[in-house]
Amino acid sequence: MHNASAESLTQLRQIYDSNKETALQEFFTFLKFPSISSDPAYAQDVAACAQWLQEYIADMEFAVEIWESPGHHPVLYASWYGAGRDAPVLLIYNHYDVQPVDPLDKWISPPFEPTIRDGAIYARGAQDNKGQCFYVLQALKTLKARDGSLPMNIKLCIEGEEECGSSGLSRLLSEKASRLKADYVAVVDLGIKAPTVPSITLGIRGIVTMEMEVSGPHIDLHSGSHGGMIYNPIKALVEILAQAYDQDGRVTIPGFYDDIDPLTPEDKAKLSFDFDENEYTKTFGAPATGGERSLSPLERNWLRPTLEINGIWGGYTGLGFKTVIPAKAYAKLSCRLVPNQSPQKMGDRIARFLEQQAPPGTSVTVKVSEGSGPAARAEINSKLTKAFALAYQEVYAKPCQYIYTGASIPVAAALARTCQGELILLGVGLDDDAIHSPNERFSIDRLEKGTLLMARGIEFLAQSLPEASPSKSSTLSTSEWEDGL
Amino acid sequence: MHNASAESLTQLRQIYDSNKETALQEFFTFLKFPSISSDPAYAQDVAACAQWLQEYIADMEFAVEIWESPGHHPVLYASWYGAGRDAPVLLIYNHYDVQPVDPLDKWISPPFEPTIRDGAIYARGAQDNKGQCFYVLQALKTLKARDGSLPMNIKLCIEGEEECGSSGLSRLLSEKASRLKADYVAVVDLGIKAPTVPSITLGIRGIVTMEMEVSGPHIDLHSGSHGGMIYNPIKALVEILAQAYDQDGRVTIPGFYDDIDPLTPEDKAKLSFDFDENEYTKTFGAPATGGERSLSPLERNWLRPTLEINGIWGGYTGLGFKTVIPAKAYAKLSCRLVPNQSPQKMGDRIARFLEQQAPPGTSVTVKVSEGSGPAARAEINSKLTKAFALAYQEVYAKPCQYIYTGASIPVAAALARTCQGELILLGVGLDDDAIHSPNERFSIDRLEKGTLLMARGIEFLAQSLPEASPSKSSTLSTSEWEDGL
Repeated sequence: MHNASAESLTQLRQIYDSNKETALQEFFTFLKFPSISSDPAYAQDVAACAQWLQEYIADMEFAVEIWESPGHHPVLYASWYGAGRDAPVLLIYNHYDVQPVDPLDKWISPPFEPTIRDGAIYARGAQDNKGQCFYVLQALKTLKARDGSLPMNIKLCIEGEEECGSSGLSRLLSEKASRLKADYVAVVDLGIKAPTVPSITLGIRGIVTMEMEVSGPHIDLHSGSHGGMIYNPIKALVEILAQAYDQDGRVTIPGFYDDIDPLTPEDKAKLSFDFDENEYTKTFGAPATGGERSLSPLERNWLRPTLEINGIWGGYTGLGFKTVIPAKAYAKLSCRLVPNQSPQKMGDRIARFLEQQAPPGTSVTVKVSEGSGPAARAEINSKLTKAFALAYQEVYAKPCQYIYTGASIPVAAALARTCQGELILLGVGLDDDAIHSPNERFSIDRLEKGTLLMARGIEFLAQSLPEASPSKSSTLSTSEWEDGL
Repeated sequence: MHNASAESLTQLRQIYDSNKETALQEFFTFLKFPSISSDPAYAQDVAACAQWLQEYIADMEFAVEIWESPGHHPVLYASWYGAGRDAPVLLIYNHYDVQPVDPLDKWISPPFEPTIRDGAIYARGAQDNKGQCFYVLQALKTLKARDGSLPMNIKLCIEGEEECGSSGLSRLLSEKASRLKADYVAVVDLGIKAPTVPSITLGIRGIVTMEMEVSGPHIDLHSGSHGGMIYNPIKALVEILAQAYDQDGRVTIPGFYDDIDPLTPEDKAKLSFDFDENEYTKTFGAPATGGERSLSPLERNWLRPTLEINGIWGGYTGLGFKTVIPAKAYAKLSCRLVPNQSPQKMGDRIARFLEQQAPPGTSVTVKVSEGSGPAARAEINSKLTKAFALAYQEVYAKPCQYIYTGASIPVAAALARTCQGELILLGVGLDDDAIHSPNERFSIDRLEKGTLLMARGIEFLAQSLPEASPSKSSTLSTSEWEDGL
């Protein structure tokens, strides 16, 4: 098995390499679409990008559909059922939309003119998520080029609204549930621990966001004439927010740590909690002193809910001084959730707590936003995880580690639930890919590694499963099977 | 005496009334200069306004000088020594610069096109302080028109930078100390308690302002990937600011209530602390629940130092969400001071306290601004106060009340100290004159009442003093006396 394995990897690498120049040109074409989903001005570009992708995937002999969404950022759905009606189905999730580009003046080369420097491709979306989407497609193409076929049935779900909350896909889930059905679901939008450390992400946190408004007098007042009389809404705001944390960094909101489904000690022991405090401080300019003091940094970030103030504003913020007591003050908050915590329930809990802290003479309203999503977790002992752990190990020539991330992919849990399949969270992203910042980049080397990782992972998964047999209850319905042929 | 008094008031009113139309036209000319001192774009207009004022006052047979300031907002200085070298000197302070006008679209009539509606003149500066400056001049003109003379020597100090910190006048004080010497100093930039309640302001608070910056990581970070690890600078900011107050509304900064020179119980008993909580709530949309809970609203505002957060900002404050932990967060603070508290000392105390609260992983710097000033207090039992109390009583036909204000005129204390004279704080402003807001106004009635108040106050003061005699040490130096003739 090991020798056959090494041989397959070599073959796949040779095929990929022989096609590398063409693939790079195609990737550049993909990157040139300014498919910024959060700005309606780019709606045409998002649609054009989906159109290009549809043709590209159709050329791979997949059946491709465009599912329109209310926000005009269509979901691209594709399927290949050549492995036979009774073969298992793997659904792979990516997104083709990208983050905005400002501040534009910080880009060394224009964000939608891909440029290679020092072995990396610089462009908006180079990693997140066009890069990771593109190597998924290259993996499928490479396998097909070698074998004329794929070892299992594949569905692709590539959405165009991940960067603005996935509301279109979220709404389509129930309507398209039968189409999305899969035995395995791979969300390929994650990263590895370090450039030479292969790692599978076993969990992402959920998220719920909200905006808080403190109201005091009905007009702005002079802080000399009214200071000491009116209750300053900014003072109320800082007092309320400060009350949400205790001196040990714990969130004091009742129920904040309820409902948590903890990891088993066995599973926890398998995670790599190594954390280099010096390296962190050097990279980010500050040590990891936030959050619950009694826990280690990665435990706090991966396995605990957190509440962050993402924005605050009120009063006079210009040059010089204006001695004003403003009528209102504001904050934006986000709460990251761990498995078993409900975004709605947590949002309501936090909102109620903050509203109840309003000092006399002020009032507080908290609006919980749409676009929330629960945490998601992958099983460390599943066949799916084991198959991809082997693939990571083979491609990186090192044992695969297991990590979590504190970040969120709001739609991931709902997608896995809709598909009714096992979930895995994959990718070869790195912390310094600058994915939401100027000069986003992705190394040419990782485009290849990602391709091989996905191809070999699919092979390992297919090999680990029992032979398909007509007696097994099929994931594909008759009509779907016929549509897909 | 009472009959003579009533007769003088009648005469002065008649003279003022006969000249009223001309005076209004002149006032409108004064108001048309957009003498906004805080915006350098209006420097020419400020200078033109000073020029017009110089000519206007020269026509009153005063010796007038323009004292240039570094900010190109000259101080206008004028003197009339016709009462004789040994007669006492009253220096009257006003300012001819005005606040900015934005939001411009909220003005019913343009701010520099004075318009009369319902007995009030609407224009920027109509009250603050062109209106109060103009009636001072009318008082002097009316007295001279009747008597051909004034009952005491008068100096006028009319600055052009009050609305941006009085830095020019503050710097000129020591250089011009001998010119500013006076027995009595009247700062005519205050108000009365209500339209029919004559009142003298016995105290204004001092002020010191500062800007606070909290630094965390050296770049903005993703609140998913770093939440629970990095110490969020916004969290640090709200925690530090909240720590500056206790649950009873007291400021917890060590030394904040030190050095206070309290009023004597006798003086305090003479102040009018009446406060209509319902009326306040109705007017401003919120009750007076701010400040130290154990004290009454006006006591807190008039006689106690306060610390207000005038502005706060950090992180993402636009539409929708960006889950960022910002590199920095900011606040603007102002502290109002009571007599005997030093702005520098208090600024340093507050800055040191806030800086020392920085949680591990963050740093705090607080920059104390220039343009601070101590509190000022007028003596309730002085001849000066008694004279003007009589004038208020006569003009308003009601006993004069005594109040304080929580607001500040930063240069007032330093000016009085430089002049070496007794201080009084005068005016007929009202809370709803909208002095720093759109649609600033001043009633035509108060233009007359202010004129009569100032004229009669000067008369009462002169009458209360012993006859001038050559043996008395003169306030005017020989050279000044000769210059002024």
